[in-house]
Amino acid sequence: MSEAQELEQLRNSIDSIDRQIQELINQRARCAQQVAEVKQKYAQPGEVVVFYRPEREAQVLRNVMARNEGPLTNEGMARLFREIMSQCLALEEPLNVAFLGPEGTFTQQAAVKHFGHAVHCHSQVSIADVFREVESGAANFGVVPIENSTEGVVTHTLDSFFDSGLRICGEVSLRIHHHLMVKDKDATVERIFSHAQSLGQCRRWLDKHYPNVERVAVSSNAEAARRASLEPGAAAIAGEVAADLYEMHILNTNIEDRPDNTTRFLIIGKLETLPSGDDKTSIMVSSRNQPGALYQVLEPFHKAGVSLTRIETRPARTGTWNYAFFIDFEGHAADAVIAPVLQGLQDQVADYKLLGSYPKAVL
Amino acid sequence: MSEAQELEQLRNSIDSIDRQIQELINQRARCAQQVAEVKQKYAQPGEVVVFYRPEREAQVLRNVMARNEGPLTNEGMARLFREIMSQCLALEEPLNVAFLGPEGTFTQQAAVKHFGHAVHCHSQVSIADVFREVESGAANFGVVPIENSTEGVVTHTLDSFFDSGLRICGEVSLRIHHHLMVKDKDATVERIFSHAQSLGQCRRWLDKHYPNVERVAVSSNAEAARRASLEPGAAAIAGEVAADLYEMHILNTNIEDRPDNTTRFLIIGKLETLPSGDDKTSIMVSSRNQPGALYQVLEPFHKAGVSLTRIETRPARTGTWNYAFFIDFEGHAADAVIAPVLQGLQDQVADYKLLGSYPKAVL
Repeated sequence: MSEAQELEQLRNSIDSIDRQIQELINQRARCAQQVAEVKQKYAQPGEVVVFYRPEREAQVLRNVMARNEGPLTNEGMARLFREIMSQCLALEEPLNVAFLGPEGTFTQQAAVKHFGHAVHCHSQVSIADVFREVESGAANFGVVPIENSTEGVVTHTLDSFFDSGLRICGEVSLRIHHHLMVKDKDATVERIFSHAQSLGQCRRWLDKHYPNVERVAVSSNAEAARRASLEPGAAAIAGEVAADLYEMHILNTNIEDRPDNTTRFLIIGKLETLPSGDDKTSIMVSSRNQPGALYQVLEPFHKAGVSLTRIETRPARTGTWNYAFFIDFEGHAADAVIAPVLQGLQDQVADYKLLGSYPKAVL
Repeated sequence: MSEAQELEQLRNSIDSIDRQIQELINQRARCAQQVAEVKQKYAQPGEVVVFYRPEREAQVLRNVMARNEGPLTNEGMARLFREIMSQCLALEEPLNVAFLGPEGTFTQQAAVKHFGHAVHCHSQVSIADVFREVESGAANFGVVPIENSTEGVVTHTLDSFFDSGLRICGEVSLRIHHHLMVKDKDATVERIFSHAQSLGQCRRWLDKHYPNVERVAVSSNAEAARRASLEPGAAAIAGEVAADLYEMHILNTNIEDRPDNTTRFLIIGKLETLPSGDDKTSIMVSSRNQPGALYQVLEPFHKAGVSLTRIETRPARTGTWNYAFFIDFEGHAADAVIAPVLQGLQDQVADYKLLGSYPKAVL
């Protein structure tokens, strides 16, 4: 056989496989439509039927990754199924998703990573606006940053939960890169501006390449880029958007010491997510007497063998909530081990709010 | 059967379909690997084997759309196959794609729309840098804007072809939206700034909602937003990024009269794309004597019944190229009708360059 004949044969095989894949995807879409019909049939009059089930999507993706034998990577295959589910869901319920804009930000990337491309994404100017859009029903879900590895925890997002009844329905992580940038690429670098966390994240790289250059911590990476754009001999560590905004020249890309530098985002909505088998829970509690209060709150988790993943302390908005603790732990609020811990906690603290149980980020 | 039982049954069907889809996708990936092996086997010593074939991808997508019976939409299904091909290709040849940055711009969106998510995208600060990255081999392909419906033709891109031997390997179109924005949302709008093309694109909307308000054409939509941010009573028509940059309040979204307002991008590379069955060709020609020259160039196309889709005139860089005409027409340079026209043209004009034949944008 000649090259052309061999290629023709393989391409015919691919075409025939494609035909089968396409038929199966449409078959899957018909099943998804039947799921919607069953849910409608059994709905109470006036009941809003929910088609999107985050816990079910997480399970499907985990199964796909677990049984994958290649040659495609587990992540590549899971991304394909994310898109297939996104397209199938769009047939039943075209989701509206509000995100912290503008378009092109990491938050939009997070929204697409979580929901796939077949949703309508609407950019909002503030975190408060994202919450409002979801509360009013204009959007089904919202996407907000919660933990930015360069700027630390996003307190606006935490504080929004004080006044909101919205639930956390999911989480997303995204890789973030740092670059070293200057205004004048021929000038000697005498000073490097960045947020303290970013300086920390690039410490080893800086020690190696700029051991004797002064490092100056400023309020944000965007501010670092702004200052470096004005001061001769100054450089900044920041992201690409800041480099463009202040017309900086990027000297070195991806200088973070750990290549897995990520930012976390939350999916917020009105939905109570059912257990998916690998979940996280976020709660907010407050206590009137601060000394010893946090320890008291954490003790029952420790005794029950529940793993705490994150704790943030915020000043409360009202007199009642003197201090509020935002606590993330592994497991679902409905789990047999967790439910009694949360029950006990409610009797013990001044205020308690379940922010949500949700599947851990799959991809 | 109860609701739970009915849903369980359907979900089991979906799981079984998913298993088959996954097996077929991996089977497809194995075929794609075999294609790569065949190409390697027949390659001359030292020959760079090309795995990515834009014309083949365009054909696959057109077939997918043509035979699609739903319930998924043709576009939704084609997007899924774009991603499947992207993942399969990544196994053979992880493509590097340079695009006009920063990250989050429409050009990055265009790159992802064309190549899917399984490629490495590298942001460049200028169109010249995109060309350089591809010429040096650091990137396999580049993505640059060519026709921006708000700013007109991107002359930087056209002019880059004067000195470059790169070919056009494909095109992408993206929808673009316009918004009306103000600094102070309570002030009366007395004046609206925008690029002349954007004002034109929103004319009917403006006639209806702001019939007696002065319209001022400025150099770009970003400039419009900047001026409107400084002058009381001024509004701007621009995109979301400009609104954020100048901290403007968006009064009305998507005010363009035609909802299909798009921007075109070119895929550039070293590859000569074979006929896909529905192609476009771009050429650059110049003539020393300007009067009548363009007509002379166009006549053979007309006589051969070839449909011209676009013509741009640019001042030439050198004495030889007094005027250069960039001409797009339907068909492939290798087509029986086209080839003699191009042959005749070369004898007739001072300079001639085939910029590339490539599949028309599918999605």
